[in-house]
Amino acid sequence: MHKLVLVRHGQSEWNLENRFTGWTDVDLTAQGVREAVEGARLLREGGFDFDVAHTSLLRRAIRTLWLLQEELDLMWLPVFKTWRLNERHYGALQGLNKAETAARYGDEQVFVWRRSYDMPPPPLDLDDERHPGRDRRYASISSAQVPRCESLEQTIARTMPYWFDIVAPQIRAGQRVIIVAHGNSLRGLVKYLDAMDDEAITKLNIPTGLPLVYELDDGLKAINRYYLGDQEAAARAAEAVANQARGG
Amino acid sequence: MHKLVLVRHGQSEWNLENRFTGWTDVDLTAQGVREAVEGARLLREGGFDFDVAHTSLLRRAIRTLWLLQEELDLMWLPVFKTWRLNERHYGALQGLNKAETAARYGDEQVFVWRRSYDMPPPPLDLDDERHPGRDRRYASISSAQVPRCESLEQTIARTMPYWFDIVAPQIRAGQRVIIVAHGNSLRGLVKYLDAMDDEAITKLNIPTGLPLVYELDDGLKAINRYYLGDQEAAARAAEAVANQARGG
Repeated sequence: MHKLVLVRHGQSEWNLENRFTGWTDVDLTAQGVREAVEGARLLREGGFDFDVAHTSLLRRAIRTLWLLQEELDLMWLPVFKTWRLNERHYGALQGLNKAETAARYGDEQVFVWRRSYDMPPPPLDLDDERHPGRDRRYASISSAQVPRCESLEQTIARTMPYWFDIVAPQIRAGQRVIIVAHGNSLRGLVKYLDAMDDEAITKLNIPTGLPLVYELDDGLKAINRYYLGDQEAAARAAEAVANQARGG
Repeated sequence: MHKLVLVRHGQSEWNLENRFTGWTDVDLTAQGVREAVEGARLLREGGFDFDVAHTSLLRRAIRTLWLLQEELDLMWLPVFKTWRLNERHYGALQGLNKAETAARYGDEQVFVWRRSYDMPPPPLDLDDERHPGRDRRYASISSAQVPRCESLEQTIARTMPYWFDIVAPQIRAGQRVIIVAHGNSLRGLVKYLDAMDDEAITKLNIPTGLPLVYELDDGLKAINRYYLGDQEAAARAAEAVANQARGG
């Protein structure tokens, strides 16, 4: 039996300001830092240990992982960073807050962008300064793959090759893996591991900072999953995420 | 022309207590943190940028690198960690302070261990709790290679394969490399790049936290080298290191 741990980064500056974040590289808030430290405590008390970690190219996830590494005395752990674990790219909505977006596009349209499985938000112009092609860290992505916006479906489609090519072979080889990422890239992994349908995954809200443990059989099929810590708190946290009109 | 940057970690808790540190995993002091942040400032003002970073498995080097990454907005940088960049293993001296060591072994013997090129300190017993074989992070090292103590010569001998196999190919491929490591593993790189003899390298003291820049030709031969920042300060820092009766 293999164990896999998923952690969604703690509260970020733009979660707090209720802005569509996407690939914008904002940092954790003080509360986000506390959430990461608390997540580490739960892992330590649960006796968890790791051989390798994976995260995105965004600092809110990297900082969450660094805090976990510090608290678990695992600063030496090998860490792999990939754009495939980045948050969903929110296109031209990135940087807008809820009120601005509703005023520009209408509440109903915003609801569709936030909650549908396959509807991408409006794309960034190629010469928009927010376009990932202008950011050196994405220089190694084929230009055909650099997103200008992503639906949840598109986010999951570019996340999963990393699971199949990199993470799954490590787990099969017996390595204990932790993945620190974002609401929507983690939805991709959960959808696959739990064989959820498109509709169900749009309704699943992963709370921030709470370690989500998967127990996998030798075929890496999920045989059990649970959040560490107070289960009622986990349910409340998921509810709070659902009620927030944010893009993650 | 290629540029390579070497940084020795800032002051550690045991530098401050004047203990032989070696592979003991102590953290930076507040001054060590300041040194790293100042090193980052010098790199930023010098217009330096990087594609990949290398460090040891010891937290004083990793934390120094993390601080550089934070300050340079390079948290997303790929980081490789290896025991081959660890500090010299100080064997049974690890944990002893200057006075304890002198009382036990005599001043002259301690001077030889600290300053000779090829004289290892007394080895750790295999069942000593300080033996690296008892530390999970070193589990992937062949037991024939796990050191029980190291001379400077032995330290350099296990550091250089990492240069030839991993770092040099990256530089030849055009990647801009930063290496954050320790006094004696960095001595290995400097000895090779500057073709120094065994005697000369024992006398070279690399100041902590100050970026050491190498300009290399296409054969990766050093054509120039300099410390960033105030050159007199660099000379004073090297002198201070030389005057400290510590193992690094």
